[in-house]
Amino acid sequence: MDWKGAYAHRAGAMRASEIRELLKLLDQPDVLSFAGGIPDPTLFPTEAAREAYGAVLGEPGVGPLSLQYSISEGYVPLRRWIVAHMASRGVVCDEENIVITSGSQQGLDYLGKLLISPGDSAYVTRPTYLGALQAFNPYEPRYADLAFGEGAPTPAQCREAALAAGGRPALAYVVPDFANPTGETLSREDRLRLLEHVSALGVPLVEDAAYAALRYAGADIASCLALDIARVGDIDHSRVIYCGSFSKTIAPGLRVGWICAARDLVQKVVLTKQAADLHSATINQMVMHRLAEAIYDEQVKKIIGVYAARRDALLAALAKFMPEGVSWTAPEGGMFVWVTLPANIDGAELLAESLRDERVAFVPGGAFFFDGSGANTLRLNFSLPSEAVINEGIARLARLIARKNNQFRAA
Amino acid sequence: MDWKGAYAHRAGAMRASEIRELLKLLDQPDVLSFAGGIPDPTLFPTEAAREAYGAVLGEPGVGPLSLQYSISEGYVPLRRWIVAHMASRGVVCDEENIVITSGSQQGLDYLGKLLISPGDSAYVTRPTYLGALQAFNPYEPRYADLAFGEGAPTPAQCREAALAAGGRPALAYVVPDFANPTGETLSREDRLRLLEHVSALGVPLVEDAAYAALRYAGADIASCLALDIARVGDIDHSRVIYCGSFSKTIAPGLRVGWICAARDLVQKVVLTKQAADLHSATINQMVMHRLAEAIYDEQVKKIIGVYAARRDALLAALAKFMPEGVSWTAPEGGMFVWVTLPANIDGAELLAESLRDERVAFVPGGAFFFDGSGANTLRLNFSLPSEAVINEGIARLARLIARKNNQFRAA
Repeated sequence: MDWKGAYAHRAGAMRASEIRELLKLLDQPDVLSFAGGIPDPTLFPTEAAREAYGAVLGEPGVGPLSLQYSISEGYVPLRRWIVAHMASRGVVCDEENIVITSGSQQGLDYLGKLLISPGDSAYVTRPTYLGALQAFNPYEPRYADLAFGEGAPTPAQCREAALAAGGRPALAYVVPDFANPTGETLSREDRLRLLEHVSALGVPLVEDAAYAALRYAGADIASCLALDIARVGDIDHSRVIYCGSFSKTIAPGLRVGWICAARDLVQKVVLTKQAADLHSATINQMVMHRLAEAIYDEQVKKIIGVYAARRDALLAALAKFMPEGVSWTAPEGGMFVWVTLPANIDGAELLAESLRDERVAFVPGGAFFFDGSGANTLRLNFSLPSEAVINEGIARLARLIARKNNQFRAA
Repeated sequence: MDWKGAYAHRAGAMRASEIRELLKLLDQPDVLSFAGGIPDPTLFPTEAAREAYGAVLGEPGVGPLSLQYSISEGYVPLRRWIVAHMASRGVVCDEENIVITSGSQQGLDYLGKLLISPGDSAYVTRPTYLGALQAFNPYEPRYADLAFGEGAPTPAQCREAALAAGGRPALAYVVPDFANPTGETLSREDRLRLLEHVSALGVPLVEDAAYAALRYAGADIASCLALDIARVGDIDHSRVIYCGSFSKTIAPGLRVGWICAARDLVQKVVLTKQAADLHSATINQMVMHRLAEAIYDEQVKKIIGVYAARRDALLAALAKFMPEGVSWTAPEGGMFVWVTLPANIDGAELLAESLRDERVAFVPGGAFFFDGSGANTLRLNFSLPSEAVINEGIARLARLIARKNNQFRAA
């Protein structure tokens, strides 16, 4: 069978997979890694999860139902908890505005399926979350820069360019809080400008809030969804589609996230989910409900304490060791710092040398740009390495960059 | 926001949803229901599942990893168990031929995404599994009858019709064992003829084996995959894509199924899954592995004992009560019997009357046909109702059908 005849380009972003392969090969104990994008498993509420699974399965009449098929919308008590959680973040909604997805990644896939046809324009930042590009790619969008305000193309110009490219403006996608990969946060003013822009452009705004709970400094900023509701009156008139997740707060291995949006849109996502995988795992939704009820606040507090110290250690090590010509972001939360190297240093080449000579791993930044730019950037994760690893790893990486700088100067 | 501008037709089969709504409304304790397609939860290994979750989460070093992100291919020990399971069914393969999916339904979605472009031809039986139509619909195929052998269009004619319709032959889909909805099984000879046909047509054959383990009578028949491997030499040259599931044997609520196929195709599915939901729930894969190791054979034996008796009760009640002019299948396994009514009785109208006058529910057969035919058919499930309910429910349904027959005769 010649599978090449199949629509192979729909099988995800090869480039990212190749990088992952490279990193997997080097997943050896002596490598100091800033490459992951994953939480520290020693912080997971493993004992609470053990108790919750035991309680659900041990409850007469409930246990068997936790192993049974269930509705595509998701477990009602969990959706009610999310309604209260969203209310605490300034979003008034009810359970018909919520659908449970298998992680927020699945939400992105379903939104791509619902909203993008080949040639349509998807507006994303440069750089943006690689997983969003991978989720949208199978629906074959044209990507365009999500730029707004002074100097950027007007909504009318964006629309014109989309039509000229043979499609229509389909959606905008943003990670407003402590973005993957940059760690940067959109100010309230920028969120309002962004809402003006997408409103004039007439597209839904997909708000990826995966990291929103992980703030270590500064004051909370209202979500794009909350700001849009204030503009338009209520959630059912909002164009913002909020993608939430328990992966960064409680644990990713259960695969539980959610979409919170206008009920018209949520109903379409429910039908999409019914056709695509029937529903997310029943038992995991019931357990996540128990965990959220019991430990959400204390768990977030615990994580924030550890990750904040690691962020501080990373920023201190960068300041201490990095040579001139290297700059980086100072995130107020999340899991990532974004580094910009001198223009003549290529992040992918640096990774190969770094693994070989210094045993330090990171993700070259180019993978996060839809247009092949960003070669001289890299993403550093600080949720997984200890403070000691951070200090030693950045010292080594800085040493390598300094050597390369000197080589360039000598040449 | 006007979501109607979105690609609403991608949100699944409305028709089926409407029927489900109707059935949901009538989900009242006094309704005798043959409508479900779900296993009996009293048969689930709830206590074994409780122990397995406890053991995984309680094992030092393992517990936290069961809550962590994991690889898109799926948990290696579970894939190895499936390799041995497939070997016991005559399929020689290794773990690179297996990818874990969130139920076999998700496998159908990903195969649709990989293999179907708008206007391509998807070949399905009439009737076929409604969930397959729903999974494929968003990729906008043209459906054509999966007919082969004497009297059917030749592969060349099928190909010509596909090209004339503006696409190419994309895939064939079949449930060879105890099909949903008919309960019927393809003979070995028909499987070989089918393989000839899809081979000449040049399309992959998606083999949905959801019910394959639930045989109550007759001798096992080799899977299409096993027969194709015998034809072509090895799995990596086979065009058959086998979709397996633990939903009907162990429990559906964990959402664990698999695809077993040529490794080229499996690699594409892995990339598709990585982009779409990263991976299936880590902990559920680890628990399913423990359950499969510990109880698979005894669990299947237990289910078969109960369901076989219910099938016998259903066939006996149909023979005892149904008026002349009604016929039905005699399945050797699975969960369904398929009933054909006199041509002047409409299944959907009958459902409305049956719910109102006799408090009996079933699924009208028309939903399982892509072409709107099959109005005088209905699907009866026997995995959920007790033998007493089966006897009383069929007596009532037969009474209603006899009344309608008499009305027609009188008119």
